Amino acid sequence: MTAPIIVLVRPQLGENIGKAARAMLNFGLTEMRIVNPRDGWPNPSAGPAAAGADVVLDNAQIYDTTAEAVADCEHVYATTVRKRGVTKPVVGPDGAARLMHSETGRHAILFGREASGLATEDVSLARHILTVPINPEFGSLNLAQAVILTAYEWSRIGREAGEGSDLVQPTAEDKLLPPAPQIELDALIEHIENMLEPRGYFLPKGRAEATRRTLRSVLTKPGWNHLEVRTLRGILKTLGRDRRD
Amino acid sequence: MTAPIIVLVRPQLGENIGKAARAMLNFGLTEMRIVNPRDGWPNPSAGPAAAGADVVLDNAQIYDTTAEAVADCEHVYATTVRKRGVTKPVVGPDGAARLMHSETGRHAILFGREASGLATEDVSLARHILTVPINPEFGSLNLAQAVILTAYEWSRIGREAGEGSDLVQPTAEDKLLPPAPQIELDALIEHIENMLEPRGYFLPKGRAEATRRTLRSVLTKPGWNHLEVRTLRGILKTLGRDRRD
Repeated sequence: MTAPIIVLVRPQLGENIGKAARAMLNFGLTEMRIVNPRDGWPNPSAGPAAAGADVVLDNAQIYDTTAEAVADCEHVYATTVRKRGVTKPVVGPDGAARLMHSETGRHAILFGREASGLATEDVSLARHILTVPINPEFGSLNLAQAVILTAYEWSRIGREAGEGSDLVQPTAEDKLLPPAPQIELDALIEHIENMLEPRGYFLPKGRAEATRRTLRSVLTKPGWNHLEVRTLRGILKTLGRDRRD
Repeated sequence: MTAPIIVLVRPQLGENIGKAARAMLNFGLTEMRIVNPRDGWPNPSAGPAAAGADVVLDNAQIYDTTAEAVADCEHVYATTVRKRGVTKPVVGPDGAARLMHSETGRHAILFGREASGLATEDVSLARHILTVPINPEFGSLNLAQAVILTAYEWSRIGREAGEGSDLVQPTAEDKLLPPAPQIELDALIEHIENMLEPRGYFLPKGRAEATRRTLRSVLTKPGWNHLEVRTLRGILKTLGRDRRD
């Protein structure tokens, strides 16, 4: 297991990026990725708010799209305040941390922009929804607070599991192949979309986006590993061939 | 057990008092006490920073000394960053939360002023030291963050113990639609096999059985539900059609 990557999706204020970095480093997280920050990068407001967590900001990677930011990750979590028509398993910060400590591969946690959260297409990239269970009558977590609770749980569960000591026995799950990196899944989805498109699957146009989301969701759920994705690509290639009889 | 009382000892900035109130209410804590706030009380900077958690500020009680603030409490915790000449049991936010949920009586948690933390005489009032285990090379928790981690754990441990059922529960995976009955999965597999067969997918014959097993295994892993299987059947039907272009 490796420490999770914190992905800030289209953040607005540099100050909040800095605060998120500070929150991360308190619990030993150092890898930050930023998708399309509103005010560009580097952002002069980020440094002062990081209160010394410069190493996180200095190493932050910038991406144009969320899909690119998680392309090399096997496990993607979308942080949302409310469950919206949830079709994915929902976990709290503690449940997510347990998954991160037990499943091999790279874990990325998506945090949406301050004002509006994650877009639906960001959520569609994820296999799990991460929701902090808060007071239903007063839910007001800011970005850095959501990040710190997640980082805190990652650290806490790690201590609980006694990592760092070589007493930890690999579990059976550790020995399974991890899910394929997101880039392989994307290629699979693209492959099947390219076959479906000319056959009118995405018509009428007005529903095309929702249909694509459903398709992605169905194919994201399995967490297929590299070999399984390769098998499926082979199946698609075969289906693209003419019948022999 | 009752919810803990958050005691801010000689806080400096009204803004931080407001942020602490906001952090508390997110996890259902409403009782704040303030010892000798530097800038008096009420403080006009507190309200805006509370972001709607006015009920906490409106009911905050003001005291001259820490001893008076905790006079009616059975359990007092002193929050410190470092353990200093510790002669008291040290707990983390999770350990403290377990005590709060298991021991009757009123629990108060002391948080020191932003710049300097708790004074030695404040700590002496406490039976437990509460320390958030942070990165030894970067410890930089602000007041509201220390409060939110404590409040979060109180809420989390309460849910774990089956209390506080009015907080939003993360959906358990088992509340999602269950996997489709095997008969639907079989029909899906048969459908795809019937499309693959005439295209030579199961050749050479000697490997056909192993190939079928792999195919079944890949399609069984997801645990697709009834709706997802129906979507996939639709996709297969579409793939069986001729291209329109």
